[in-house]
Amino acid sequence: MSLDTVLARLDTDLPEAQNRLLDFLRIPSISTDPAYKEDCVRAAQWLVEDLGSMGIEASLRKTPGHPMVVGHVPGDGPHILFYGHYDVQPVDPLDLWNRDPFDPAVEEGPSGPLIRGRGAADDKGQLMTFVEACRAWTAERGTLPCRITFLFEGEEESGSPSLVPFLKENAEELSADLALICDTGLFESKTPAIITMLRGLLGEEVVIKGPDKDLHSGMYGGPAINPIRVLTRVLAGLHDDNGHVTVPGFYDGVPDLSEDLRLQWEGLNFDAMGFLGGVGLSHPAGEVGRTALEMIWSQPTCEINGIAGGYAGAGFKTVLPSEARAKVSFRLVGDQDPHAIREAFRSYVRASLPPDCTAEFHPHGASQASEMATTHPAFEATRKALSEEWGREAAFAGCGGSIPIAGHFKSLLGMDSMLIGFGKDDDQIHSPNEKYDVESFHKGMRSWARILDVLT
Amino acid sequence: MSLDTVLARLDTDLPEAQNRLLDFLRIPSISTDPAYKEDCVRAAQWLVEDLGSMGIEASLRKTPGHPMVVGHVPGDGPHILFYGHYDVQPVDPLDLWNRDPFDPAVEEGPSGPLIRGRGAADDKGQLMTFVEACRAWTAERGTLPCRITFLFEGEEESGSPSLVPFLKENAEELSADLALICDTGLFESKTPAIITMLRGLLGEEVVIKGPDKDLHSGMYGGPAINPIRVLTRVLAGLHDDNGHVTVPGFYDGVPDLSEDLRLQWEGLNFDAMGFLGGVGLSHPAGEVGRTALEMIWSQPTCEINGIAGGYAGAGFKTVLPSEARAKVSFRLVGDQDPHAIREAFRSYVRASLPPDCTAEFHPHGASQASEMATTHPAFEATRKALSEEWGREAAFAGCGGSIPIAGHFKSLLGMDSMLIGFGKDDDQIHSPNEKYDVESFHKGMRSWARILDVLT
Repeated sequence: MSLDTVLARLDTDLPEAQNRLLDFLRIPSISTDPAYKEDCVRAAQWLVEDLGSMGIEASLRKTPGHPMVVGHVPGDGPHILFYGHYDVQPVDPLDLWNRDPFDPAVEEGPSGPLIRGRGAADDKGQLMTFVEACRAWTAERGTLPCRITFLFEGEEESGSPSLVPFLKENAEELSADLALICDTGLFESKTPAIITMLRGLLGEEVVIKGPDKDLHSGMYGGPAINPIRVLTRVLAGLHDDNGHVTVPGFYDGVPDLSEDLRLQWEGLNFDAMGFLGGVGLSHPAGEVGRTALEMIWSQPTCEINGIAGGYAGAGFKTVLPSEARAKVSFRLVGDQDPHAIREAFRSYVRASLPPDCTAEFHPHGASQASEMATTHPAFEATRKALSEEWGREAAFAGCGGSIPIAGHFKSLLGMDSMLIGFGKDDDQIHSPNEKYDVESFHKGMRSWARILDVLT
Repeated sequence: MSLDTVLARLDTDLPEAQNRLLDFLRIPSISTDPAYKEDCVRAAQWLVEDLGSMGIEASLRKTPGHPMVVGHVPGDGPHILFYGHYDVQPVDPLDLWNRDPFDPAVEEGPSGPLIRGRGAADDKGQLMTFVEACRAWTAERGTLPCRITFLFEGEEESGSPSLVPFLKENAEELSADLALICDTGLFESKTPAIITMLRGLLGEEVVIKGPDKDLHSGMYGGPAINPIRVLTRVLAGLHDDNGHVTVPGFYDGVPDLSEDLRLQWEGLNFDAMGFLGGVGLSHPAGEVGRTALEMIWSQPTCEINGIAGGYAGAGFKTVLPSEARAKVSFRLVGDQDPHAIREAFRSYVRASLPPDCTAEFHPHGASQASEMATTHPAFEATRKALSEEWGREAAFAGCGGSIPIAGHFKSLLGMDSMLIGFGKDDDQIHSPNEKYDVESFHKGMRSWARILDVLT
């Protein structure tokens, strides 16, 4: 059976596949920081060349931001689009890494070998699982089993500003029968999962301004308004004592969890205490009366992701600063409207300001939540293929993260998506010491080989 | 009359005095930042050499932190100690300066020439007014009019950790009949003032810790506690809606303003709207029901001087950070006990913490408020000398800033202090573009020459 030869080649070629990934990880393609603009281009170019090395015609496509990479393999059977992103998160605080985040290596971890470096799991390692499956398939069979389009983005970690215009402009070229997206994880690091619910994401930066210059808190402290103090009051008011978000209209469009889904999720026997315990916590901190899985998969949030104001260096400075800023994000579910919530948030902030203070806002992305069409026959076939590879029944799971691409594929290209990934809970994506288990990388490739086999 | 020759020499030598000050300002003696340790030593050495150049025996005296400079001039008549500090504040945000803060120059300002650079007003320019007065006096008369001890500190901007031990160890050497302290300003930039009330200062840094690593807000947002959110709630709770500080026992020891003082302050016709308008504000923001002058001179405050947590760089990062921190300071009046308030603040923070969060505290200085003994005959004599130089009746004023040295001189050395300075409200001390008017510098020297004359 020819699938076996593809799988065998993936086993044999694993060391070379690892080296290719390490090479890719050495490029510091941090999309949110303009200082790394050229590195993002280099990462895109790396992908073009890698696809080219296996005979796939791919090119770097300009956008107002970082480039897209698009590749095409003609063929019969269904047309599949594969999506991943080559950009990565910033790396600070750098001193918490055990190595230079862009000098990756295979390390021996407590549960087997792992690949350490920024992007190892999110998303370079993940997207390469599909690329490696295609490489092995091509090497064994001379071609891929169906028509495949590759789409790699370079702005996923910075709100994807160029994505929607690009999809619109290239709708015909990119519309396929089904999209495969590899940017998610296993359920509890053990069970393969197809994500069927994704939270949306809305990002806002708010800058509170008061005095027109930094002041001395001895000379002005008392009569002069302190923007940090105003900011803390504004932010503290975003939740009530039960963890409920207070922004007016915030819960409009949040659906009740269906009994069916609640039962299915209960059946997963999620280890909430283990999940929290893994990061040094012991109490679910969200809304009172919800299970942890509900909170992550089906409830919206409001989080402060960054705050800065005044003097935060070594020592002390009795400054009364002229401004203070925070980055706030909202995870959205159901039919919550990110644009309405952005306006409601801004109105809330403005209404909370005392005299002499103004607020300035900077938008950072807005995407609605999305739910997958699990009735599509590919879902059940893929579930079986995944179960076979991992020796465990694959789950239809929710996901707390926001992968707006699935919603855009549906609304702009009329295309359903399957989100499958092999990350583990302890991969520390977005954190220092990000890693990807060699097991995830290896079984990930094998999973895609199996999925390509059942889908065609 | 020989005072006239001293004053005339100060007029003639002004250009050289300015050059000496510029030279002194070029040394980046930022005491709070360990990176500038050697520069602090250089600034101390500069003073030793400058005093030496006019025949005053001075030396650099070691402390566990930055060195003290002590100089002695023997003589008859009263023994006067002069105090100033050679360290300066940090300079960030650097991009708001019109020049390199340590490449000072004389610029033409809207109301005459000014000396621009970090430390120009606080306190290098001010301390040099006294040194220049002594230089002219020595040049004209061959000696100073009385016994004078010079004491220059290098840690005033970073909580003076070495000061109290140094005063205790050298109490005999440093005890004089009266201390002169030059680190304050004119009243409303026009009227010479002797400061008779100083607020105390208590500094605390608090670090709220939650998860044991930075998390991804998609994966953990909801059930995982966010330390920034906890910090904003803790800080927002420090004041009630009337601007009253809520820390239990905070107001213990705050005296009522005497009717006498209230009337005297009313007589100063303080232009509160002009004071606020100069920094882009129009509403007194402190406690409801207090005048701006009361708020600055006689009321305590609680201010957040710095806050940091999560990702605050360019772009957006959906991080749920493992910790968040703030620097908080309290200005104290009357008999408020800084140590009791530190404990009460810490208890308040600890009591506000949700499960899974801890707080770590770092103390940054603690000094009580102090009130001067205006009955000392030197006060009235000095007031006359100042009034003569400036052509306006000098005021007995309060001061919002905290100059703990006056309290230490009283409690440790039994010595009364007169605080006299020539800074103006728009000097932007602790801010970008700090400056000192040449008028302040020049009339400051002349003021000290007159004061030395009347005190001896």
